[in-house]
Amino acid sequence: MSLLVVGSLGLDDIETPFGKVESVLGGSASYFSIAASQFTDVNVVAVVGQDFPEQHLQLLSSKGVNINGIQKADGDTFRWQGRYGYDLGDPETLGTYLNVFEHFDPRIPDDYKQSDFVFLANIDPELQLNVLNQVDNPRLVACDTMNFWIENKKDALLEVLKNVDILMINDSEARELGEDSFITKAARNIMEMGPRILIIKRGEYGALKLSKKGIFWAPSYPLEEVLDPTGAGDSFAGGFMGYLTNEYDITTTNLKRSVVYGCVVASFTVEDFSVNRLAALKDEELNKRHGAFMNLTNIE
Amino acid sequence: MSLLVVGSLGLDDIETPFGKVESVLGGSASYFSIAASQFTDVNVVAVVGQDFPEQHLQLLSSKGVNINGIQKADGDTFRWQGRYGYDLGDPETLGTYLNVFEHFDPRIPDDYKQSDFVFLANIDPELQLNVLNQVDNPRLVACDTMNFWIENKKDALLEVLKNVDILMINDSEARELGEDSFITKAARNIMEMGPRILIIKRGEYGALKLSKKGIFWAPSYPLEEVLDPTGAGDSFAGGFMGYLTNEYDITTTNLKRSVVYGCVVASFTVEDFSVNRLAALKDEELNKRHGAFMNLTNIE
Repeated sequence: MSLLVVGSLGLDDIETPFGKVESVLGGSASYFSIAASQFTDVNVVAVVGQDFPEQHLQLLSSKGVNINGIQKADGDTFRWQGRYGYDLGDPETLGTYLNVFEHFDPRIPDDYKQSDFVFLANIDPELQLNVLNQVDNPRLVACDTMNFWIENKKDALLEVLKNVDILMINDSEARELGEDSFITKAARNIMEMGPRILIIKRGEYGALKLSKKGIFWAPSYPLEEVLDPTGAGDSFAGGFMGYLTNEYDITTTNLKRSVVYGCVVASFTVEDFSVNRLAALKDEELNKRHGAFMNLTNIE
Repeated sequence: MSLLVVGSLGLDDIETPFGKVESVLGGSASYFSIAASQFTDVNVVAVVGQDFPEQHLQLLSSKGVNINGIQKADGDTFRWQGRYGYDLGDPETLGTYLNVFEHFDPRIPDDYKQSDFVFLANIDPELQLNVLNQVDNPRLVACDTMNFWIENKKDALLEVLKNVDILMINDSEARELGEDSFITKAARNIMEMGPRILIIKRGEYGALKLSKKGIFWAPSYPLEEVLDPTGAGDSFAGGFMGYLTNEYDITTTNLKRSVVYGCVVASFTVEDFSVNRLAALKDEELNKRHGAFMNLTNIE
């Protein structure tokens, strides 16, 4: 079994009420692949600039991530600058510098093309389509997107949605895409666009999985320490896809378990800046917190 | 077993994106007692004005609510005017007219004084203390409060908290009272003020129960139709206290089950304006939705 992710690698400048960091490892593909590496081997396709520190690539390698698909282009690495308030909700974006990401042309290496599971992180839906044309009949494809693409690249996005099994987005994106303020109705509308499963990431409130078979809710454990929410959604996706890839059989129960593991992995990411906590995560810590998550909704 | 609630009865003018109603039955004690009447007999203490329609009292009576403790005073009934936006979150208060509620002096009838379970709805903490002085050693006391009392009657509120078993508030109230932005730390601080159990109402995200023994999360089922969120919190409290009163034994499992039933009952309240849906609720509807709630977090 193998898992392919196509997304961004970046350098982030982040400020929260609990600290400030500069030029730390960021981007959807970094959080995703380190989270997924907890469960399975990951092939990553992304682009970095000449300034991208070698140590970040070494970190990914050390987690068992296959970095042969990371292209090095002329110019600087994608950079995001953001600031969070005390509620640690949506951050204020202080700057976005696409740099080499502006001309990102994802080329899937031959030995990645038969990946069983594929995750298209939040990038231009035209690039997502480009990737879908290069892979060879994967068992399952999941993708992420955001309001910007819903508003500005709707046609390409709808084409992507026809060709994916799972869409993972947040509450407000689901309401916007599904054109209904009630999440269940919006979900039905989205499923008619293609994905047979919709996963809604709700931050500190966990995640919902909706399909024609019903609704499943994985809660999120109330944390004592949240330093930086950046990457929680991508870590969720990595934990979800990593666990599912390792299980291999796409059953309803395995899908639900994957949602829970996604929430568990994401709960570590936010405990420190960048991928610091995630990269240091031990199996026994993961298992212990998984137990706490399961207890949270246990009545008897 | 018996359950006493002291709170407000009011007439509400409410506007949501889905409709507009005037002079409908409102107030914490109405939602609470109709919700609790699904499970047990309820004694209510409140005050109404000369304009309070007889039909509202008849409705309460028809649900098995003991209305002998409702005082009729000279003047008009408490009135609240509010408007909700499309997110159906916190409403904009357009007007609050205390009227007869301004001089409310809760007098507990003799045959109510030995109520086993007592709920002090969100009223002035000095009135809550007054009630506590009149009741005769109840098995369990729970109370609600709000930011206004936390900010303006802190000393009286702290005195109340020393004498209650359970405090039920929402996320932002918990953070303000517990003086910490992390809910688990805020909860610990609040439990040191007296209540051994803290229940945090999270609207569409369900409810948390926190105690020294651990954390329990009851999810809320994503609804297809929400017309008016007014009274959801008081209906939750009524469902919780009603179920617990009927079970009588205050075990951890019964407390968790009560939280679930609180969420289930509240999910009906919001489906129509005022107490319309709640008052029409049948046992079989309640049981069916309870099953759906339990399935929501069921993995296997």
